[in-house]
Amino acid sequence: MADAHAPERPLANGQKRIDFQTAPSRYRHWKLAIDGDVATLFMDVDEKAALFQGYDLKLNSYDLGVDIELADAIERLRFEHPQVRVLILRSGKPRVFCAGANIRMLAGASHAHKVNFCKFTNETRNGIEDLSESSGLETICAINGTAAGGGYELALAANYIMLVDDGSSSVALPELPLLAVLPGTGGLTRVADKRKVRRDHADVFCTTEEGVKGKRAVEWRLVDEVVPGSKFEETVVARAREFAARSRRGAAAQGITLAPLSRTFTADGVDYGSLSVEFDRGGRVATIMLRGPTTPPPALADAMAALGSEFWPLKLARELDDAILNIRLNEFDVAAIVFKSAGDPAEVTAYEQFLDANRDHWLVNEIRHLWKRVLKRVDLTSRSLVTLIEPGSCFAGTLAELAFASDRSYMLLGQREGDNKPPATVVLTEANFGPYPMSNGLTRLVSRFLANPADLEAAKAERGKMLDAKAALRLGLVTFAPDDIDWDDEVRVFLEERASFSPDSLTGLEANLRFAGPETMESKIFARLSAWQNWIFQRPNAIGEEGALKRYGTGQQPVFDTRRV
Amino acid sequence: MADAHAPERPLANGQKRIDFQTAPSRYRHWKLAIDGDVATLFMDVDEKAALFQGYDLKLNSYDLGVDIELADAIERLRFEHPQVRVLILRSGKPRVFCAGANIRMLAGASHAHKVNFCKFTNETRNGIEDLSESSGLETICAINGTAAGGGYELALAANYIMLVDDGSSSVALPELPLLAVLPGTGGLTRVADKRKVRRDHADVFCTTEEGVKGKRAVEWRLVDEVVPGSKFEETVVARAREFAARSRRGAAAQGITLAPLSRTFTADGVDYGSLSVEFDRGGRVATIMLRGPTTPPPALADAMAALGSEFWPLKLARELDDAILNIRLNEFDVAAIVFKSAGDPAEVTAYEQFLDANRDHWLVNEIRHLWKRVLKRVDLTSRSLVTLIEPGSCFAGTLAELAFASDRSYMLLGQREGDNKPPATVVLTEANFGPYPMSNGLTRLVSRFLANPADLEAAKAERGKMLDAKAALRLGLVTFAPDDIDWDDEVRVFLEERASFSPDSLTGLEANLRFAGPETMESKIFARLSAWQNWIFQRPNAIGEEGALKRYGTGQQPVFDTRRV
Repeated sequence: MADAHAPERPLANGQKRIDFQTAPSRYRHWKLAIDGDVATLFMDVDEKAALFQGYDLKLNSYDLGVDIELADAIERLRFEHPQVRVLILRSGKPRVFCAGANIRMLAGASHAHKVNFCKFTNETRNGIEDLSESSGLETICAINGTAAGGGYELALAANYIMLVDDGSSSVALPELPLLAVLPGTGGLTRVADKRKVRRDHADVFCTTEEGVKGKRAVEWRLVDEVVPGSKFEETVVARAREFAARSRRGAAAQGITLAPLSRTFTADGVDYGSLSVEFDRGGRVATIMLRGPTTPPPALADAMAALGSEFWPLKLARELDDAILNIRLNEFDVAAIVFKSAGDPAEVTAYEQFLDANRDHWLVNEIRHLWKRVLKRVDLTSRSLVTLIEPGSCFAGTLAELAFASDRSYMLLGQREGDNKPPATVVLTEANFGPYPMSNGLTRLVSRFLANPADLEAAKAERGKMLDAKAALRLGLVTFAPDDIDWDDEVRVFLEERASFSPDSLTGLEANLRFAGPETMESKIFARLSAWQNWIFQRPNAIGEEGALKRYGTGQQPVFDTRRV
Repeated sequence: MADAHAPERPLANGQKRIDFQTAPSRYRHWKLAIDGDVATLFMDVDEKAALFQGYDLKLNSYDLGVDIELADAIERLRFEHPQVRVLILRSGKPRVFCAGANIRMLAGASHAHKVNFCKFTNETRNGIEDLSESSGLETICAINGTAAGGGYELALAANYIMLVDDGSSSVALPELPLLAVLPGTGGLTRVADKRKVRRDHADVFCTTEEGVKGKRAVEWRLVDEVVPGSKFEETVVARAREFAARSRRGAAAQGITLAPLSRTFTADGVDYGSLSVEFDRGGRVATIMLRGPTTPPPALADAMAALGSEFWPLKLARELDDAILNIRLNEFDVAAIVFKSAGDPAEVTAYEQFLDANRDHWLVNEIRHLWKRVLKRVDLTSRSLVTLIEPGSCFAGTLAELAFASDRSYMLLGQREGDNKPPATVVLTEANFGPYPMSNGLTRLVSRFLANPADLEAAKAERGKMLDAKAALRLGLVTFAPDDIDWDDEVRVFLEERASFSPDSLTGLEANLRFAGPETMESKIFARLSAWQNWIFQRPNAIGEEGALKRYGTGQQPVFDTRRV
């Protein structure tokens, strides 16, 4: 197996680290064209610009590098182009829409990369849906050519799919017949639960290598409309106009610029403006220290817009997102992520009040939804998560969500000897009771208190108060509250223990315990679908020397262990 | 890995086949004691009576053989002892309740056996919950000793858990720290979703080898009550009396006897009274032929009770269940199961009408719920399922559910050349619109028609009619309706194709497409939890030569690949 203790594959650009930061001027694979209230995102993959060495990105196939640009473009539509009401996804190449994830890339990737690649691409597709749900953009995918595998899965993220009716263009999920894996970037779930394709039709579709085209694609609900080639362009324009008219997105506001993050990478850490990451590589721990604001919030919303991406809540969200992604894809050996904070809880609370007071401002809406997505990214990060709440910290409102996203939290009771900082406090605000649902559709506190909704009400009643360790423990907001005498030992033992356990079993444990309660399409993608795909990515029938991924394109047929499990 | 093309491990009894049929007189591991309206099921595992060679069942640990007896006892409580209103689960051994699944058994089992063993034990625990939900028995688990791993998971299936408070008895889920696997028999899901344990408490509990005891076990909702040792017996009796008084189960009716199934095994098949199974081993297909009734239903419910387990709907359900389990655990090479039927649809419909007319009779209630469980077992069988509806078949009501449980169905249009049997028909009855929910909580037709509820109403309007292939196709009840000229080729090509695909990817595909719509605790166990466990069961950290399952008990520490995935 490619996986067994092998180093990760070298990056094509010679760097040691996958970088999640980019900007339209640097895109190699996408072109974002904006015309009034309609944005078109053209996929035109540069086959020579693969992320890793060893393969070309033929036929608009993609790897993580391609998807990082897509994710960036979607974020910029939200913040930089608030006047856009319709997004059209289409291909910049003739006769092919997108061939899906690159097979050579998959065949040569470590298991850890494959799994985290899929997770990121899933989050990007969920982000396209969130763009529509939370920002009100209408999304259209215009398929003029073949949309296969991940190509069709990308189309499925749009809310309206148009397919040219030219006798050859089709949609297909050929993963199973061709590669012995699943359409794992949401494909099966969106076919069943979003497009509600009848299950026997879905069975036929997903086992038919060449896919479905024309009228049947509409009858089986795989696309919304087929259009003759001669009328395709004009129909796309007509749909865009129609959908722009019904879009809920507000009238033209001035966007802000998402400035490049300022980061300094050192051997054992990363420094950002409002947070820093420190790696204890021997202990396999990454500590993320979040810093509270250094200035009060502006008095008026216009001043916030003038600050742009320097506005503290936005800056911190972007930096935290980058820090988490860096750990996920570049630091596989990290067993646990520790969240700490430093700052004044009253100042953090002042920002929460500012955001609440301006909740109808488009930029506040975008910032809240960005935090929602970043916090979901935290929930879905397969590392043990722990929040340490110490004197001098500022876990209030949005920042307190990190404690509720953690597998457990420790809050220091009283003061530290020889330190005159007052005892730590936690502050609940409106932010803890609504704007940040998890992928199961519930807030973290609702999920936490499923057993007894009265506990939720009790916590709600304490909004705005500085809660010390005793109060936080009584309200069920933290797991343990050791005093200074026990603190260091308890935390050290916990982190050592975590590093001693099998990483896989922790991944499975946390994936089950973090998401009590209902499931949504989104949570089904990360649970049912991804877990099965990960299993298949470990099975010799896919990844063995005689398996389908390895033999694809060699002319040799794969050899399967025929036992059904 | 134990799995790679190795034969399955030999059975201890020298047989070639795991047998799912047993009876209380033959139990080696359980004692069922009935005292008025209270039944006690004592677990007292005979350590020398393991299912496979090579290990002993120490400390009330279990293998599939132990669980087959448990499943049998639960079924008998339903049919043979309708007067029982309370079930107490407890240990027949001192100081230990149950140590969970036997580790040596797991370490030496093939992946296919491990996965199907877990599936069956999950179904059995779901069956204990269904006993309470559908038959109204109250279930108590009385833990006097240690309930670890699968032992505590068994307790979690009861609705009330009592733990002796003796300073040593505890509940524990030590799978992760001890074995690098998950509490995969529902444990994580029931902790999070049934008992609604707070997620940070659950995290601590599931990573603490020695478990939790005494007051904390109640505070953390892991048990309902702790009782001092001196008062344990009297308190168990008191709770049984209390719960008997509130049980919904009807007053003393006379039970029926579940007679041994009459079966004949041949080299390429199995014959039962009302169905037969034929194996095409080259083609990797098992064909299950279900036979309609040969006599009309009795006029009165009393006559049904007199027929006992010979009553056709009950007989067929039990035989189908045994046939499915035989394929699941003894015939791993079968890629597809084909359902066929032979009989008169009008006679089958007459039985449906009889069951509907007598729906308040306790035995009819039990028969409907047995079919519900058998059909769920079909849904969860990881083989491709196809129903072939041909002239002479009798897919009406309950039997038609098999077509809706299938990944696809073919219905022959018109007659066969040279055959004077009239064209095939399908009949919908009340049975298709309520009594048989899938594990997602929806009926198969509701799941099928999620896209357009009007399709469900259109189907409902046709209840009782003999629907020919054209009508069935129009109503969306079947996938394809080829005529005699195309039939053989279409079916052959489909089955050959199915056998040519990777078995693993089919398992993943079907597990995703069969369950559109909502998730329940039950479906979460088979999706989220089982899929993650299956993944872990493939990972070297658990099953490699240096992995935790292999090294358990050797005195050597496991060696883990530290990369988090």
